[in-house]
Amino acid sequence: MNLPTIRDLLEQVHSGAVAVPEAEVRLQQFLRELPFEDLGFAKVDHHRALRQGLPEVILGAGKTPAQIAAIAGRIVARGQSLLVTRTNEEAYQLVRQEVPEAEFHAEARAITLQQKDMEPGHGVVLVASAGTSDLSVAEEAAVTATLMGNQVDRLYDVGVAGIHRLLSAQNRLTAARVIVVVAGMEGALPSVVAGLVRVPVIAVPTSVGYGTSFGGIAALLGMLNSCSNGVAVVNIDNGFGAATIASLINHL
Amino acid sequence: MNLPTIRDLLEQVHSGAVAVPEAEVRLQQFLRELPFEDLGFAKVDHHRALRQGLPEVILGAGKTPAQIAAIAGRIVARGQSLLVTRTNEEAYQLVRQEVPEAEFHAEARAITLQQKDMEPGHGVVLVASAGTSDLSVAEEAAVTATLMGNQVDRLYDVGVAGIHRLLSAQNRLTAARVIVVVAGMEGALPSVVAGLVRVPVIAVPTSVGYGTSFGGIAALLGMLNSCSNGVAVVNIDNGFGAATIASLINHL
Amino acid sequence: MNLPTIRDLLEQVHSGAVAVPEAEVRLQQFLRELPFEDLGFAKVDHHRALRQGLPEVILGAGKTPAQIAAIAGRIVARGQSLLVTRTNEEAYQLVRQEVPEAEFHAEARAITLQQKDMEPGHGVVLVASAGTSDLSVAEEAAVTATLMGNQVDRLYDVGVAGIHRLLSAQNRLTAARVIVVVAGMEGALPSVVAGLVRVPVIAVPTSVGYGTSFGGIAALLGMLNSCSNGVAVVNIDNGFGAATIASLINHL
Amino acid sequence: MNLPTIRDLLEQVHSGAVAVPEAEVRLQQFLRELPFEDLGFAKVDHHRALRQGLPEVILGAGKTPAQIAAIAGRIVARGQSLLVTRTNEEAYQLVRQEVPEAEFHAEARAITLQQKDMEPGHGVVLVASAGTSDLSVAEEAAVTATLMGNQVDRLYDVGVAGIHRLLSAQNRLTAARVIVVVAGMEGALPSVVAGLVRVPVIAVPTSVGYGTSFGGIAALLGMLNSCSNGVAVVNIDNGFGAATIASLINHL
Amino acid sequence: MNLPTIRDLLEQVHSGAVAVPEAEVRLQQFLRELPFEDLGFAKVDHHRALRQGLPEVILGAGKTPAQIAAIAGRIVARGQSLLVTRTNEEAYQLVRQEVPEAEFHAEARAITLQQKDMEPGHGVVLVASAGTSDLSVAEEAAVTATLMGNQVDRLYDVGVAGIHRLLSAQNRLTAARVIVVVAGMEGALPSVVAGLVRVPVIAVPTSVGYGTSFGGIAALLGMLNSCSNGVAVVNIDNGFGAATIASLINHL
Amino acid sequence: MNLPTIRDLLEQVHSGAVAVPEAEVRLQQFLRELPFEDLGFAKVDHHRALRQGLPEVILGAGKTPAQIAAIAGRIVARGQSLLVTRTNEEAYQLVRQEVPEAEFHAEARAITLQQKDMEPGHGVVLVASAGTSDLSVAEEAAVTATLMGNQVDRLYDVGVAGIHRLLSAQNRLTAARVIVVVAGMEGALPSVVAGLVRVPVIAVPTSVGYGTSFGGIAALLGMLNSCSNGVAVVNIDNGFGAATIASLINHL
Amino acid sequence: MNLPTIRDLLEQVHSGAVAVPEAEVRLQQFLRELPFEDLGFAKVDHHRALRQGLPEVILGAGKTPAQIAAIAGRIVARGQSLLVTRTNEEAYQLVRQEVPEAEFHAEARAITLQQKDMEPGHGVVLVASAGTSDLSVAEEAAVTATLMGNQVDRLYDVGVAGIHRLLSAQNRLTAARVIVVVAGMEGALPSVVAGLVRVPVIAVPTSVGYGTSFGGIAALLGMLNSCSNGVAVVNIDNGFGAATIASLINHL
Amino acid sequence: MNLPTIRDLLEQVHSGAVAVPEAEVRLQQFLRELPFEDLGFAKVDHHRALRQGLPEVILGAGKTPAQIAAIAGRIVARGQSLLVTRTNEEAYQLVRQEVPEAEFHAEARAITLQQKDMEPGHGVVLVASAGTSDLSVAEEAAVTATLMGNQVDRLYDVGVAGIHRLLSAQNRLTAARVIVVVAGMEGALPSVVAGLVRVPVIAVPTSVGYGTSFGGIAALLGMLNSCSNGVAVVNIDNGFGAATIASLINHL
Repeated sequence: MNLPTIRDLLEQVHSGAVAVPEAEVRLQQFLRELPFEDLGFAKVDHHRALRQGLPEVILGAGKTPAQIAAIAGRIVARGQSLLVTRTNEEAYQLVRQEVPEAEFHAEARAITLQQKDMEPGHGVVLVASAGTSDLSVAEEAAVTATLMGNQVDRLYDVGVAGIHRLLSAQNRLTAARVIVVVAGMEGALPSVVAGLVRVPVIAVPTSVGYGTSFGGIAALLGMLNSCSNGVAVVNIDNGFGAATIASLINHL
Repeated sequence: MNLPTIRDLLEQVHSGAVAVPEAEVRLQQFLRELPFEDLGFAKVDHHRALRQGLPEVILGAGKTPAQIAAIAGRIVARGQSLLVTRTNEEAYQLVRQEVPEAEFHAEARAITLQQKDMEPGHGVVLVASAGTSDLSVAEEAAVTATLMGNQVDRLYDVGVAGIHRLLSAQNRLTAARVIVVVAGMEGALPSVVAGLVRVPVIAVPTSVGYGTSFGGIAALLGMLNSCSNGVAVVNIDNGFGAATIASLINHL
Repeated sequence: MNLPTIRDLLEQVHSGAVAVPEAEVRLQQFLRELPFEDLGFAKVDHHRALRQGLPEVILGAGKTPAQIAAIAGRIVARGQSLLVTRTNEEAYQLVRQEVPEAEFHAEARAITLQQKDMEPGHGVVLVASAGTSDLSVAEEAAVTATLMGNQVDRLYDVGVAGIHRLLSAQNRLTAARVIVVVAGMEGALPSVVAGLVRVPVIAVPTSVGYGTSFGGIAALLGMLNSCSNGVAVVNIDNGFGAATIASLINHL
Repeated sequence: MNLPTIRDLLEQVHSGAVAVPEAEVRLQQFLRELPFEDLGFAKVDHHRALRQGLPEVILGAGKTPAQIAAIAGRIVARGQSLLVTRTNEEAYQLVRQEVPEAEFHAEARAITLQQKDMEPGHGVVLVASAGTSDLSVAEEAAVTATLMGNQVDRLYDVGVAGIHRLLSAQNRLTAARVIVVVAGMEGALPSVVAGLVRVPVIAVPTSVGYGTSFGGIAALLGMLNSCSNGVAVVNIDNGFGAATIASLINHL
Repeated sequence: MNLPTIRDLLEQVHSGAVAVPEAEVRLQQFLRELPFEDLGFAKVDHHRALRQGLPEVILGAGKTPAQIAAIAGRIVARGQSLLVTRTNEEAYQLVRQEVPEAEFHAEARAITLQQKDMEPGHGVVLVASAGTSDLSVAEEAAVTATLMGNQVDRLYDVGVAGIHRLLSAQNRLTAARVIVVVAGMEGALPSVVAGLVRVPVIAVPTSVGYGTSFGGIAALLGMLNSCSNGVAVVNIDNGFGAATIASLINHL
Repeated sequence: MNLPTIRDLLEQVHSGAVAVPEAEVRLQQFLRELPFEDLGFAKVDHHRALRQGLPEVILGAGKTPAQIAAIAGRIVARGQSLLVTRTNEEAYQLVRQEVPEAEFHAEARAITLQQKDMEPGHGVVLVASAGTSDLSVAEEAAVTATLMGNQVDRLYDVGVAGIHRLLSAQNRLTAARVIVVVAGMEGALPSVVAGLVRVPVIAVPTSVGYGTSFGGIAALLGMLNSCSNGVAVVNIDNGFGAATIASLINHL
Repeated sequence: MNLPTIRDLLEQVHSGAVAVPEAEVRLQQFLRELPFEDLGFAKVDHHRALRQGLPEVILGAGKTPAQIAAIAGRIVARGQSLLVTRTNEEAYQLVRQEVPEAEFHAEARAITLQQKDMEPGHGVVLVASAGTSDLSVAEEAAVTATLMGNQVDRLYDVGVAGIHRLLSAQNRLTAARVIVVVAGMEGALPSVVAGLVRVPVIAVPTSVGYGTSFGGIAALLGMLNSCSNGVAVVNIDNGFGAATIASLINHL
Repeated sequence: MNLPTIRDLLEQVHSGAVAVPEAEVRLQQFLRELPFEDLGFAKVDHHRALRQGLPEVILGAGKTPAQIAAIAGRIVARGQSLLVTRTNEEAYQLVRQEVPEAEFHAEARAITLQQKDMEPGHGVVLVASAGTSDLSVAEEAAVTATLMGNQVDRLYDVGVAGIHRLLSAQNRLTAARVIVVVAGMEGALPSVVAGLVRVPVIAVPTSVGYGTSFGGIAALLGMLNSCSNGVAVVNIDNGFGAATIASLINHL
């Protein structure tokens, strides 16, 4: 029973074609069985990506290039913007056959296509990274944030072992509305950054390192235990997730 | 807007006091704002304990004796059966002032009052334990299952270091409809039990042990890695939880 | 000394061919050395799979396709139903040469052959999964449960990030006699499901995820710490094990 | 050498009292030794709390009541707002002797005094919690956010075991500008909340639970592995930290 | 039906009072129901301690002094030797009222009474310890081994930080038949000892240390990863267990 | 200065060719610099393998087939028995070119050559294993023990899920002088075995399993927490190490 | 047989009172049994503390005040300097009765007495700490280093959340010969410090923090994964150990 | 504004071309915006390697041979010494095309070129290793230390299972100014070494081992819990890092 049907029912009640008690039973039945997608908030599901200002996202890891290309084709055909994460050149070649205008971001390991103008964010999303080996995760964040309509400033290789590199960028830090900080190893950069600004810092631990880095756990713990205020953390290597929350903040 | 109101609305539609388009708008509004407790499944919440055949449960840990007594009083006043877990003698003395008929189970660290007949389970819930130190958790399971309307058979101290003790109880194992197995240390008992029966085994690791028992992790891992079919596991020391799922099974 | 021999001995005692003291010694010797498979419960071993309503199972992981095919051939020759788990297309091609009627379930990574009617379960085993990446484990559970004689209902991709998808299937949840819930990442689905039903929920954590998912540990811990009653847990990715215990429950 | 001295030096250069090369050497020396607190950003330190819109905070844990009272007295004497976290009634009695107007929030284990109007946030900070045992951490977040000038909406006891309780508050969720979600045990609430809204969700794992909750690690992992977009996480039990970042977001 | 009954039955068969088929049925019934304690190996249980050359042992931890005293009294009344581990002076005072001849070993935290001569071991059990803080566990091992009939040599405070202390005791090491090595911190002593002898080394990690000793895990891992041949390991602080296996070896 | 040189020095002292003070200085110098291999116990090093009744062992893992063959050739040339562990067929083909009589044990992944009679052990070393997947580690233990001069009894596939298989081998268990028990998954077999015998049990956890077996940690913890007396544990998959200590025990 | 005996023996050889073969036998015997403390390096043991420029140290944790006082008395009676770590006021009162000149360092939880001039170090040992809660461990390091003869500079509360505090002390950092850096929470300070200097940095993680600080593990991992060169790490809270190695470096 | 510009400004002030107040404003502006690399300590960054007596280092892991060769070419063109770690023969072949004089150290997996004389260290850096499998990490340390201008003594294969091998090298241990100790498995060697010397010991755990070695964690914990004074630890397999700090110490 969809909403037109409700009008039909009401019309029938009004005309007397359906008695009130019978109509009441049918409405109660309807309330119990109502497919949730018919309710207001059910739109969340079918249009969640849109609603949150996000493109449609394909997690490339664990999918074949052919699968990625097929899904990408369908997304673009619906007029949606496209983002494929954790993918590679090989998948891109197949995607390009379906979506010729798609772009490949090698460092970010991402494929994108912007099909319509996203609502622009209010300020700058600054993506800072500690070392050159964090570049891939940082670029995933930067490419994602850009596709979501944000102006992105990249501040790379400002790790704490040479602290003045970060300090000399104080102006760019201060100019940002939200900062994504990507760091592996000891994960100390978010603490230092958050001590210098008064905007939210989203910290992304990376799996860079060896031995006791434990695939990013050391960095994760460092970030969760930050002695600075204003730091929140996402999963290891989750550049996409950090960009998503940063974009939500930047669009408030 | 509650269900009588729907009838009112329908009456008004029928009488023409409210026009169909206006009625449709009000119904759609109603669908969006409908408090979930008015839907069928919303009864889950207010009556979940009842619906699942469970008594009302108070987790005693972290509550003062006075708090426990007050909550217990209200539960009993509503006519519900009562179960307080992880409590002690001191709390019982206060509860008794509110609920004079309440019973204290020292070994199980539980207070109970059965106010009405629970629907009886179809068979026997057997509670087996490995050692004397697992007794408290085993008793929590046994007392809980009893209160939920199950016939309970206790088979204690049948740890695998003296395997024939278990084997000599083969008949009781076979007679059970579902078996709760409580064990600490290496947690091997559920594997052996499940190899002897064809009914579900709910395994409860206990925090009994020292050093590498790691507060029950060794037993938990042993149970999750059981080489026998038909074993599922609950949280460490969670005798209550095991009894609950056992009771659900026994009431199917 | 087998049971016929006991009769022989008794005959000889009766006839006087063997004196009573000598017979007593031989019987005591017999009691000590009695091969267990001669006792009633010893049949458990040779016929355990049968007895528990299970097909013969080959864990494909760690075996060569040739080994799998050989074992499969012997199982089928004995008239048993066949289940190979964690296998692949390559093994299937070899198995088919031995067992032409065997079926391959690509998503479940399983090979099956039902040779005789299993005793049917009393109700429906519902297999729910959180995301598309949990599909393989969910299918292992569904295929296993089907082979064990259960009617299986699949409810996939109802993760908690879009909660209404699950809610709109309330009727199917309520109709199940036991529910297997498969989820990776944060493993929250079993808690939500168990809050909506009054039947046992068997939770299967999957190794889906990255970083702090730790190969399924995050999901496992989420399930063990479920705030809902009626949840028990099996090993990570153990779809087979969950189906087995669900089938035991469904056959009670 | 302070800034007035620079002018003196320049005057001397102008008058010829100091030769240019000598002045250059003295300026270079000055640049090397310049105390950082004389630079613009050095004010960060002395006024960081103020600058970030935060009150002065005393972490009560590990300090004696007398120490807390003494520090609180000095803070209030400077005209600052006061926040003492992780404290207790005993400390409050001493603080009250120094700061008679201070308030004690028993559930939040916090002492506060608002001495001047904080800059109001732009929207509502909603603090949601899963269970009654998460109350203390949730209240720490709520009290902190209030003191920082935010309008706070409390939505407590909406854990996923009774999902409709959360769903029926859809309007309040949607009305928030940023949401702090506090949960222990399996930590599933943030995933469900983030699936219903398009604002940032700051997740706080709590140490509520036993056995495999591992003092909040289970909840933490659940939150880091959220299948929903827009979730970032702070340290276990860190209600204060979550409120701080939420306040930063709400003041953007 | 006990063994005399078998003779009765055989007599009746012989006399014809019971027919052979009837006797066969009764014997088969007997085989199925036979309480395991009537079988040969069932004696394991009731007499296991005796059979393994062990005294009766009470684990004092988690028992009240009154409980310990009561159990100790019953053990001694049965003529058994007595060993209470992980106990204290307070329990000893109560035990002494039941068992006046019992001895208290303060360092070992043990109470003992030797009631009959144990079978002597064939050689010397040497108990070596690394530091003075391992003394308690080492003494538990030494006292246990002594009570089990072994000649015990104590070689304490020979940690690897002063390696010559160990080397100067080469003769005593060589003279032992089995060596128990007790060490906390890095747990390196067993490796060095095993490199100097050709007898089995039973390693006992202790919970001595702080920080990354993790309550004995560091020592445990050190011992499990010993680069020397001939080292096997028991649980953390399990001096009793090490002595038991050493005694078994020494009695071979 | 070797021992013959001491005699030379003494002769020179005796003849007066070297004065006593000069001789004393040279002897003291000798004591300080004495290469340890010249002392009695220094033979440990060069002859340790021999002294402990062990063959020369090559750990194949991490070595190329060519390296293995070269080392094997030198060992055999010295007249030593040979044992290569963790190796493969490919290495064996190269070894055979150097040592034509060498044998390959495919299941044990070992290459052996017995060049002289080892001192025979006093009894039987029984190697028990829980499942077929533990076979490789069990065979490494069995092959090693055999090469070290022990009579070996293999009792495989007696896991606790079918407990009567183990019980029916009670005689063989009782006949052993030392028992090596190899088990993965929950690692429960050593506890059950140790409860049935009065000889030492050396437990070997294996990395068999998946998910929460954590590469053998579950089994390791199970064994360290054994509720039976007389169990000591070696590293995961260390069949060689278990055989070595079992052989030491069997040669006492 | 001590060294004078060697001369006696040589004299007897010279005089012919002992024949050369007999003397050789006795010397060989001597070499085998030689107590190591008679060798040159054996002095390590009896005089190790002295030799390494360390005072005699009593680890107070786990000792009664009476025990501490007794040991302290003996140390001072031997003329040694005294250091008691991890102790308290109560122990100090007893120590003072034995050693009236002993000093108590409340923050460092240490008791000291310098009885003779230590060899002075060549430069300054700088002890830096991140926060006020690291003070106790930092003071343990500072007090220890002072007692070992080092000039100590304390630079406290220079955590990375307010980075300019550290930078403004650049001169003191540069002036140090070795730096001990004490930090809890994320443990980021050593990385920043090591990036600013060219001297060794000894990092001490502290157990300060809560939740995911895991008693100092987060800080430890941060330090082990430092992105800066020149950082080495000691155990959690091991201020004493850091001071010891810093002192060794400063005395080179 | 660079330093020449300061002189220009001063000249203008002196000549009156710029008024003093204007000059003051420009200088203050300069102080705020001053690129840090223009300050004295900013040279740290561009010349940090030089300043710390280190060559330029390329971490080979994660870089393609072509990338390595390109970077190496630029480093050598700047006249810097070159060190590539964690690299291989293939990369070397490409590097040689850019830098013909570069050397490859196969065991150390390093490529080096010394372009100018490093400042020599004051003493010997001894690199000790426990087993042959630690060779690669030990050589990385030795090659690094050599390139940094240190005299290096290699003492390999002196693990604690044959302790006299280490003891016989007492002289070489004593002769060193700083000792790097590399060990896997139980990681006991640093404790023994530090007990024999009075110089700093830098311990490097290696990932050698299997099962419970956990990729070097066992060795790491052993080293952090060393019972000897004077041991500090670096990350697992971090031979380069150990050599760096050892070189800093040796150049003090």
